[in-house]
Amino acid sequence: MKSIYDKVIEFRDQRNWKQYHNEKDLAISISLEANELLENFQWRSSEEAVKDSKQNMKEEMADILIYLVQLADKLDVDLEEEVYKKLEKNAIKYPVNQE
Amino acid sequence: MKSIYDKVIEFRDQRNWKQYHNEKDLAISISLEANELLENFQWRSSEEAVKDSKQNMKEEMADILIYLVQLADKLDVDLEEEVYKKLEKNAIKYPVNQE
Amino acid sequence: MKSIYDKVIEFRDQRNWKQYHNEKDLAISISLEANELLENFQWRSSEEAVKDSKQNMKEEMADILIYLVQLADKLDVDLEEEVYKKLEKNAIKYPVNQE
Amino acid sequence: MKSIYDKVIEFRDQRNWKQYHNEKDLAISISLEANELLENFQWRSSEEAVKDSKQNMKEEMADILIYLVQLADKLDVDLEEEVYKKLEKNAIKYPVNQE
Repeated sequence: MKSIYDKVIEFRDQRNWKQYHNEKDLAISISLEANELLENFQWRSSEEAVKDSKQNMKEEMADILIYLVQLADKLDVDLEEEVYKKLEKNAIKYPVNQE
Repeated sequence: MKSIYDKVIEFRDQRNWKQYHNEKDLAISISLEANELLENFQWRSSEEAVKDSKQNMKEEMADILIYLVQLADKLDVDLEEEVYKKLEKNAIKYPVNQE
Repeated sequence: MKSIYDKVIEFRDQRNWKQYHNEKDLAISISLEANELLENFQWRSSEEAVKDSKQNMKEEMADILIYLVQLADKLDVDLEEEVYKKLEKNAIKYPVNQE
Repeated sequence: MKSIYDKVIEFRDQRNWKQYHNEKDLAISISLEANELLENFQWRSSEEAVKDSKQNMKEEMADILIYLVQLADKLDVDLEEEVYKKLEKNAIKYPVNQE
């Protein structure tokens, strides 16, 4: 993730936007972008939506990740490490089926 | 992102979950997790929320990223590339202030 | 609620839209409209948002209620009764302070 | 809507909660409840979800309406009137098919 992180933070800092980036509004922003992604699926099956709107989906997914990185930076959280911790926790909850 | 991507997909495939992962439900899942993150800020300032609930925030952020990677995999989308494209697009929309 | 209910359902039925209104997409629609309402508050205090965007807030609130009524109709749920039941349940959870 | 409105506001005022009810957190709350409703449909068809979780759906729908009424009260908005205005606007956008 380091290169994504560096580019997103560079973009933000070139514009001096960190001062506006409180955690609550960043969390709101992630929900807004997640719903803009979801809007592509309203009244449609997955297949129809992907066929018609894949380009928009990509942009909304990028927006979600950009806000997520900015929130991680504000909270001094290492997203990569958190994903690994969560997968370990989930692995206990959902063990691999041994047959 | 490659290492996150590999671990998330490995986790999913060890459990044979790809068959359930249609794009519409993955997009729903991202919105659900985004709102679980946001719930930490309900009736609270950023400062209060971060003080009380940083651990939960980290887990919800990991959940959002895990679903985002799974959706990217289903759509054959390179999240890192999409972030760079979106930053370039945003750079035109919001040029750096020249003084 | 009866008059709201009647008008919303009349509007829907004049257009023969009931056939498209599955419960899952109605629930998605409520989340989308809730986030369009929330977007008015992104990067702003309540005061700033209400000052600038009250008209849009009203329309998004109407959209939420319109979808909620349509979902209630599909599920054969009496929203008014459900609100009273929920208030009774909440009253036990949050008793009025006796001093 | 008058009777729902009266009961929701009475409930709130018996607990002196109006002081906490800023518009931004009420809008957040509506999104949170909308996603708790939506969670019932995660990884399921409408039919499966309604079969398994109708009781929870009813409660989440009530929660959405309770927060919506509280936001309407704070904003001094008549929800019923707003729904009628929105239906009139939608009627122009989506005229009834004349055959």
